[in-house]
Amino acid sequence: MTSEVFDGVFGTTAVSAALDDAAIIDAMCEAETALARACARAGLVELPVALEIGAACEEVRSLAAGELSRRAAGGGNPVIPLVAELRAVVERRAGSDAAAAVHLGATSQDILDTALMLVASRALGIVVADVGDCATSTAALAHAHRNTPMAARTLLQRALPTTFGAVAAGWGSALDAAADKLRSVRSELPVQLGGAAGTLSVLHPKGWEVQSAFADELDLAVPAAIWHNDRTVITALAGALGTCAATLAKVATDIVLLAQSDVGELREGEPGGSSAMAHKQNPIAAITARGAAMQAPGLVATLLSAAAPELQRGAGSWHAEWPALLALLRYSGGAASRLRSSLNGLQVVPETMSANLAALSDDVDIADTGAAGEIVDRYLERRPR
Amino acid sequence: MTSEVFDGVFGTTAVSAALDDAAIIDAMCEAETALARACARAGLVELPVALEIGAACEEVRSLAAGELSRRAAGGGNPVIPLVAELRAVVERRAGSDAAAAVHLGATSQDILDTALMLVASRALGIVVADVGDCATSTAALAHAHRNTPMAARTLLQRALPTTFGAVAAGWGSALDAAADKLRSVRSELPVQLGGAAGTLSVLHPKGWEVQSAFADELDLAVPAAIWHNDRTVITALAGALGTCAATLAKVATDIVLLAQSDVGELREGEPGGSSAMAHKQNPIAAITARGAAMQAPGLVATLLSAAAPELQRGAGSWHAEWPALLALLRYSGGAASRLRSSLNGLQVVPETMSANLAALSDDVDIADTGAAGEIVDRYLERRPR
Amino acid sequence: MTSEVFDGVFGTTAVSAALDDAAIIDAMCEAETALARACARAGLVELPVALEIGAACEEVRSLAAGELSRRAAGGGNPVIPLVAELRAVVERRAGSDAAAAVHLGATSQDILDTALMLVASRALGIVVADVGDCATSTAALAHAHRNTPMAARTLLQRALPTTFGAVAAGWGSALDAAADKLRSVRSELPVQLGGAAGTLSVLHPKGWEVQSAFADELDLAVPAAIWHNDRTVITALAGALGTCAATLAKVATDIVLLAQSDVGELREGEPGGSSAMAHKQNPIAAITARGAAMQAPGLVATLLSAAAPELQRGAGSWHAEWPALLALLRYSGGAASRLRSSLNGLQVVPETMSANLAALSDDVDIADTGAAGEIVDRYLERRPR
Amino acid sequence: MTSEVFDGVFGTTAVSAALDDAAIIDAMCEAETALARACARAGLVELPVALEIGAACEEVRSLAAGELSRRAAGGGNPVIPLVAELRAVVERRAGSDAAAAVHLGATSQDILDTALMLVASRALGIVVADVGDCATSTAALAHAHRNTPMAARTLLQRALPTTFGAVAAGWGSALDAAADKLRSVRSELPVQLGGAAGTLSVLHPKGWEVQSAFADELDLAVPAAIWHNDRTVITALAGALGTCAATLAKVATDIVLLAQSDVGELREGEPGGSSAMAHKQNPIAAITARGAAMQAPGLVATLLSAAAPELQRGAGSWHAEWPALLALLRYSGGAASRLRSSLNGLQVVPETMSANLAALSDDVDIADTGAAGEIVDRYLERRPR
Repeated sequence: MTSEVFDGVFGTTAVSAALDDAAIIDAMCEAETALARACARAGLVELPVALEIGAACEEVRSLAAGELSRRAAGGGNPVIPLVAELRAVVERRAGSDAAAAVHLGATSQDILDTALMLVASRALGIVVADVGDCATSTAALAHAHRNTPMAARTLLQRALPTTFGAVAAGWGSALDAAADKLRSVRSELPVQLGGAAGTLSVLHPKGWEVQSAFADELDLAVPAAIWHNDRTVITALAGALGTCAATLAKVATDIVLLAQSDVGELREGEPGGSSAMAHKQNPIAAITARGAAMQAPGLVATLLSAAAPELQRGAGSWHAEWPALLALLRYSGGAASRLRSSLNGLQVVPETMSANLAALSDDVDIADTGAAGEIVDRYLERRPR
Repeated sequence: MTSEVFDGVFGTTAVSAALDDAAIIDAMCEAETALARACARAGLVELPVALEIGAACEEVRSLAAGELSRRAAGGGNPVIPLVAELRAVVERRAGSDAAAAVHLGATSQDILDTALMLVASRALGIVVADVGDCATSTAALAHAHRNTPMAARTLLQRALPTTFGAVAAGWGSALDAAADKLRSVRSELPVQLGGAAGTLSVLHPKGWEVQSAFADELDLAVPAAIWHNDRTVITALAGALGTCAATLAKVATDIVLLAQSDVGELREGEPGGSSAMAHKQNPIAAITARGAAMQAPGLVATLLSAAAPELQRGAGSWHAEWPALLALLRYSGGAASRLRSSLNGLQVVPETMSANLAALSDDVDIADTGAAGEIVDRYLERRPR
Repeated sequence: MTSEVFDGVFGTTAVSAALDDAAIIDAMCEAETALARACARAGLVELPVALEIGAACEEVRSLAAGELSRRAAGGGNPVIPLVAELRAVVERRAGSDAAAAVHLGATSQDILDTALMLVASRALGIVVADVGDCATSTAALAHAHRNTPMAARTLLQRALPTTFGAVAAGWGSALDAAADKLRSVRSELPVQLGGAAGTLSVLHPKGWEVQSAFADELDLAVPAAIWHNDRTVITALAGALGTCAATLAKVATDIVLLAQSDVGELREGEPGGSSAMAHKQNPIAAITARGAAMQAPGLVATLLSAAAPELQRGAGSWHAEWPALLALLRYSGGAASRLRSSLNGLQVVPETMSANLAALSDDVDIADTGAAGEIVDRYLERRPR
Repeated sequence: MTSEVFDGVFGTTAVSAALDDAAIIDAMCEAETALARACARAGLVELPVALEIGAACEEVRSLAAGELSRRAAGGGNPVIPLVAELRAVVERRAGSDAAAAVHLGATSQDILDTALMLVASRALGIVVADVGDCATSTAALAHAHRNTPMAARTLLQRALPTTFGAVAAGWGSALDAAADKLRSVRSELPVQLGGAAGTLSVLHPKGWEVQSAFADELDLAVPAAIWHNDRTVITALAGALGTCAATLAKVATDIVLLAQSDVGELREGEPGGSSAMAHKQNPIAAITARGAAMQAPGLVATLLSAAAPELQRGAGSWHAEWPALLALLRYSGGAASRLRSSLNGLQVVPETMSANLAALSDDVDIADTGAAGEIVDRYLERRPR
């Protein structure tokens, strides 16, 4: 299934490239290469053999996804045919002894979990950058509109005065926190290496040394424990993405609401048209950011449901993580990208803000924006640089 | 993003072809063609013009998904650039008056909702066939093992005797019900036609006539009401797929449990191997059926959350349906396909069933299988033919 | 845990009374009474004994929930201590032979599933009545405002003219459909009777006769099959409630949006105040209807996840249904009750509708409401009476 | 609605007491008292007045939940009638000037968010203690069975040898991590104080000082920003609870699987009986821990969906948090309590473990448990004390 047709709408074009078949196959090959090198560092494999395995991985990398997919069905994961192919290539290049060093001490889950961490790390790089750009835009808005008065709306009713700067500061501090959290989760993504039964038996007693070198080769973290059947790594990542998507959805929702024809306080720089109504000016980037972000809660629930795998390897729950995690990264990233477009060039209409504020009850002092200015100042001072 | 690499594992190869970019673009083109023909039947468009539009749709069908995706971002859906392209082609072929007849009286949502119903209908055809094949297998198992005694297990503890036939009958009646429900939902999938504001204004007073002809052209149902912002159609479909996925997961779970090394009462015909352990005989089709089916509950939740669209067209909630619905069809279909493989060739081990049953408490009469045989008979008698 | 404090806010006061501890204990007692009577009808128990069991159930009904709860922990469900208590009472009243006739041929799940169907049926009675009242209100609004022009808003931007009658007709047809579906699901709620292993062994060969009489006694349906481990009954109910909640949320969302200070086209009859702002007029019934309805998607997902029970009785998945189903009934009911309050006395402001419509683009003919009037007429004609 | 009847089954008896109506009303009263004292510390209220307000809160604390619930419906939250009552009591005790100092500068959300943080903190105290007890049990099991060989099972098939100590170490490190995370989230739970529009206007320029004193009075954290409409606090708590529930479910699932009649390697100390089968020995504490934990993913999804509130206060999304958060705390806590019971007294059957291991393929060296012992050692060394 190719599914490009909605990528533009949901802003997933860039992040999808980090999550596609080629990215996954590459990551599995990188993991096998790194494992061979790590075994060499621990003295379990001779270095020339490890280098041959690395070279063979380069060759195997071009294996067609469809072909791999077909051959993966039999064993239930793509590592099995990939390793078979890799062994065949190494055997052809360097003989059967070298071939025996392929995938040494590893199980499919070691390679696939590690590959998905690599893929997640790369996708998160894109997501974090886009969330960061969103935050940069909101900082500029907060700064520029520190004192621009507008009506705060609680329960969607005009309530009391605030400033648009304070509103943007609220968006911004949440975006900064979401990006920080994603960066932190990203920096802790670990390799997986436990061997067939999670006891590192084949590599024993050098398993920990190999695990550490494996992490070093791939620039991933050394895990606190073998996590074949402790999925806290996945749920922590899911939680951070779920929070990030909610934060993006919150900002997008506010833009959509303030851009309503009936409010008119914001306008996207390049609003969307309609197939039927020439006069429409839809804040379409924010609208589709919401659409993308709305995918997240259900996907987080799927990953949490899958996080109680049976005994030493989940019989379906492990597998269930793959599409849900890829989709969660994809649509969180899409929401970030679309919100970035919405915020970049967002037009603020101070006169309409004033007019709407002036319509508030006579009982309200519309000049009293309380600590709104200080809220902006505190936000800008605390921003990470 | 191409995402073929896991198709084999999750059994989604066939159903994905019904859900891919080409299928979606085709369905949008079919909807535009059918709309033109329906307008012609109502006398709003001349027949030759409608035929030209149909011919132009054939041409537009080859528009690359990536190109359409890029151009769809601006307006937030792929219908807008598709219609622009279609108008350009018609204008070139038949002049600007003909071009004005393209997309007559419709809004993007009319075309996209209708196209997704076409796509859903076709995907459901595949899903229903696979669920039907599963049910055929269980019927054969129930028949063959009407009197094969085994231990019923409640709360995963051996409880009292039953027969494998009764177990299979339980699977089968649930599968039959799930297939029936999907067939029924499928037969009620309607076209969408409401025009820009859901008032059929451009087509007025011929809107109902066009709507009816539109449905007829596409072999979809006439909707009870314009459903731009009443998403019962989607939630009913989601509910039926969610129930179907749960039913498939139930059968798959039972197979995985009865195929445990510690139980040994079932074996898949072609069990899966391991990248690390030559002796493993994993019931991998059932395992991956579970993995696919576990995607469903979260996706159903997403579709239910999206089913309260704002006013006349959801500002993000409408869009949120697209990936969730496509994924729900995909993974429900995958679960059906994998369970079909698991059931087809499933090996039953009566002697192990007997041995395990014999180990039950001395307080239990292991010959008393109660109404197990009648359960089989009633199931087989009531089966749809 | 008592949890009355939010009942008023979420409109759950009435429905909660149908779902509380007393309602559940009563329903379990009714199920035991009905089972004894059904066994008497099949000649398995003497009528006087069945009558004694019924009388004992009346006595047991007053067992404190806390006491039952404590004693239920050991076996994992409240039926076990209830039956123990019931046997003790019957023995005291009528001797040990009579006591042996208590719970004849049944397992805990037979009684608890059946009791929850009774409870669901009663709660649904309240929910359906409230949804019906909502629908009556929308019918009156549609009738009264058939020709009241207003701006349709797509993607939250003013689009083209419609009438408030057409908007209300859209609400109403969805509400009617939701109520119909709930009524239909309600009428099909079955008893459960399968015995310890789902083979009706103790009652054999009179099991089917007892099952049928059991259903007759309780005015529930005879199930298509023993459903200890086929949870389609639950998922169908969940699906109908999920759709109903989405429909209620949709109408509530529209009211909240049209009642925004910035729109001003609707006002609740008794808007809510604020603890801090005297001028606020919050459409609080609609707001809290949304809050209640938002509980539904996650709860439906929980029930779908639980619907793949292991072998003959789910080891945790069965139990997981109880809180989720009760909460789903509760909050769906609450949403209906709150929306009923919102619609009852809803004030329409035609002059503001006109003014907002007049602000639409000059390119739009604001008098052209297309088929809006017909939409109202068709809705009113098709309404169930 | 009282809902004690299932408390015993789901282990929610203790945690429910921290979440019940009285706990919530108390917490709101504590928040009002603390606010008055904080205002006094900032010089905005005279200390005797603050003390009078505190005394009045003691009086108001006894307000019946049903009464408060009824009066809460009108404004959509229980703070409004609570403040009205409090003002009346203060006026009676100390005059109208004192009454004007009640709820100074606060909005309902300030009090309710703060009260829910107090409630969450107390409930988390119970949950963390139970998770800690689970972890203590697993540490003892890991220590005692460091060298007890058993079959690792991957995809529910016997794979290779491990030790029960290594299995318990895997449980334990995940439980330790979950408890740590909950402790960390708990220590960061902040007060809420933003005033009607989130600008601290009434308290200006002393708002920050009051906020800080308010936090100090309640032993909660000072928030990074006013979080009326940035719900990261809630989603972080939800994520930690979701992960904790998954971890509890994982351990419980393993116990249920290893306690199957067909495996027989574990037995609960006090297994559950059956209403129909005297010989059953169900690992009921683990089974019901699973049932409780299965509530979590859907509730987390609800909280994530609610975390994009509209503008300055969510119109339904804020309200939606209350039942979902309380239920998530309740059932996470229940799962911890039930797993604690399961682990406490868990019986390990080394001879059955050996026998099952011996049945593994002849190709496997059943003495090779690899790094299993080291896994135990590393786990025990790294444990927090």
